[in-house]
Amino acid sequence: MRLPLRSFCIFRTLIHRRLTADVQRRNLSGAGMRLVQFRRHGDGGGVVRVGVERGDGLGVVDLKAFDPSMPSTMRELLELGEAGLESAHRALASDQCLVDRADIQLLPPVSAPEKVVCVGMNYKDHCLEQNAPIPKEPIIFSKFPSAITGPYDDIVLPTESQEVDWEVELAFVIGRRGKHIKEEDALSHVAGFTVANDVSARDWQMKRNGRQWLLGKTFDSFCPLGPALVTTDAVRDPHNLNIRCLVNGDAMQSSNTDQMIFKTAALVAWVSKFVTLTPGDVFLTGTPPGVGVFKKPPVFLKKGDVVECQIDQLGSIINKVV
Amino acid sequence: MRLPLRSFCIFRTLIHRRLTADVQRRNLSGAGMRLVQFRRHGDGGGVVRVGVERGDGLGVVDLKAFDPSMPSTMRELLELGEAGLESAHRALASDQCLVDRADIQLLPPVSAPEKVVCVGMNYKDHCLEQNAPIPKEPIIFSKFPSAITGPYDDIVLPTESQEVDWEVELAFVIGRRGKHIKEEDALSHVAGFTVANDVSARDWQMKRNGRQWLLGKTFDSFCPLGPALVTTDAVRDPHNLNIRCLVNGDAMQSSNTDQMIFKTAALVAWVSKFVTLTPGDVFLTGTPPGVGVFKKPPVFLKKGDVVECQIDQLGSIINKVV
Repeated sequence: MRLPLRSFCIFRTLIHRRLTADVQRRNLSGAGMRLVQFRRHGDGGGVVRVGVERGDGLGVVDLKAFDPSMPSTMRELLELGEAGLESAHRALASDQCLVDRADIQLLPPVSAPEKVVCVGMNYKDHCLEQNAPIPKEPIIFSKFPSAITGPYDDIVLPTESQEVDWEVELAFVIGRRGKHIKEEDALSHVAGFTVANDVSARDWQMKRNGRQWLLGKTFDSFCPLGPALVTTDAVRDPHNLNIRCLVNGDAMQSSNTDQMIFKTAALVAWVSKFVTLTPGDVFLTGTPPGVGVFKKPPVFLKKGDVVECQIDQLGSIINKVV
Repeated sequence: MRLPLRSFCIFRTLIHRRLTADVQRRNLSGAGMRLVQFRRHGDGGGVVRVGVERGDGLGVVDLKAFDPSMPSTMRELLELGEAGLESAHRALASDQCLVDRADIQLLPPVSAPEKVVCVGMNYKDHCLEQNAPIPKEPIIFSKFPSAITGPYDDIVLPTESQEVDWEVELAFVIGRRGKHIKEEDALSHVAGFTVANDVSARDWQMKRNGRQWLLGKTFDSFCPLGPALVTTDAVRDPHNLNIRCLVNGDAMQSSNTDQMIFKTAALVAWVSKFVTLTPGDVFLTGTPPGVGVFKKPPVFLKKGDVVECQIDQLGSIINKVV
């Protein structure tokens, strides 16, 4: 019964360790940026701001403080297209309007997108894990945007489910509007990448709601996202990244994004056959093996657990289960 | 091959007839309002405005022209709660800032909601039609908000589907934020009612995408909505309304909302167990029998068809298939 205390210590230690590691990973690529949304402590749930993480420290440049004409949400920044990103570059280069990391709370890098597009069964090794055939077409489902929560926020266990599970996923965010996008043009529509946890209530996903996955996937807080939107030019190869999920420090999922069946460009092209994609739209690209429901016996999240999702070059999100 | 011309005439005649009938239905209840979103012709895709339809004519009162501090989208108006509706009442009573119906295009009464929540298998007679058991719990799925289109806009047939079908549905819109809403409080969270067509690509819904309905339901233009958001106090009994769908003037669906298995209050209570509901959220409450896929032989929409969805007290939406 000492797990909650142990978990709390793990939580604090992990956040410190990951932040330090993030610093070391920064600025490996020239023009790339780590864009964040944040709020100053003491703002009482108030003002959302967009920032750019500095390469040499934990602080962020407050974009709107640097240029009051800039928007204060990521979605609005992305809607400005290249002009918005250039302004963010200038802000970062200015070394002005710095905010110390200790003074802010990181929010999800995108909030209130028009769409959270999710992909099921998209890792070869995850299909093998459940003896399922490898899909010939992407399987697309969704979460409501209300499920999105911050990189260090709590996952709230709903009383309605007894089978809440983890799923680390590579996420990407649309930066440019488009319909019927060709695969060869698709990456120019992607603003960047981030880490997601596609938290899933297996009882609701697999046994109820007429087998439609939506409800089991979309409880409030079931989409932790972050810590930063790492722009596409800062990620060397999004399909050669180690991807891991740890629960209370124990590795549960460990794979590589090279196992993805339908990769970023293919997913953009596929989904844009159906719907117009718009800046801020978030894609969750599927999970590798090691989820709780397929363990023997199955394991599910309980109060006090700490879930950490890590992807190379992007960083970690760490969420306590409450 | 004369269908397109015949359909065009049906389209024009129907719109005229329905507008006239709408006038006769107005102001049956005291405080109720018919709220709309509109754009002035010639605005070139520009400014969205919120308006209140007059009881005595086809014109609408332009809310922002009456009070420049008022918002210009329905979602923002609803976020103001009672204050917003009171301002709309004052605007209507003022008889100022009238815009002639001929000078405007009606838009969907809500656009860019956080959620479009849909309910499957929610009419007893629709379950009987397909020999399906009556569900013990609501079956919830979703469309992306990008599917929403206006009450007289075109339904665009995607080349990706050969089986596009109609579904007239009673829709309601959330007016007050809430989670874990009790059934007895639920109606106080509902701003009002409107008419929807839950356009559905049956091939994608029923045979592909791992049987997840989302893709077949969410092509662009697959959610015509309108013509007005009729406030809750203007609808005598939302569960005793005749509901019909006509294709090229022929009645395909004809039922009554008293056939709904899970009614408005039950749906609000159910979905709010999972997610926080927020002003502007749109619910589509399921369709009665008479859809094309269950006709023998099946019938699907083709270019030139005109689909009209009617609900007593709410009005009609009329959409051409292109």
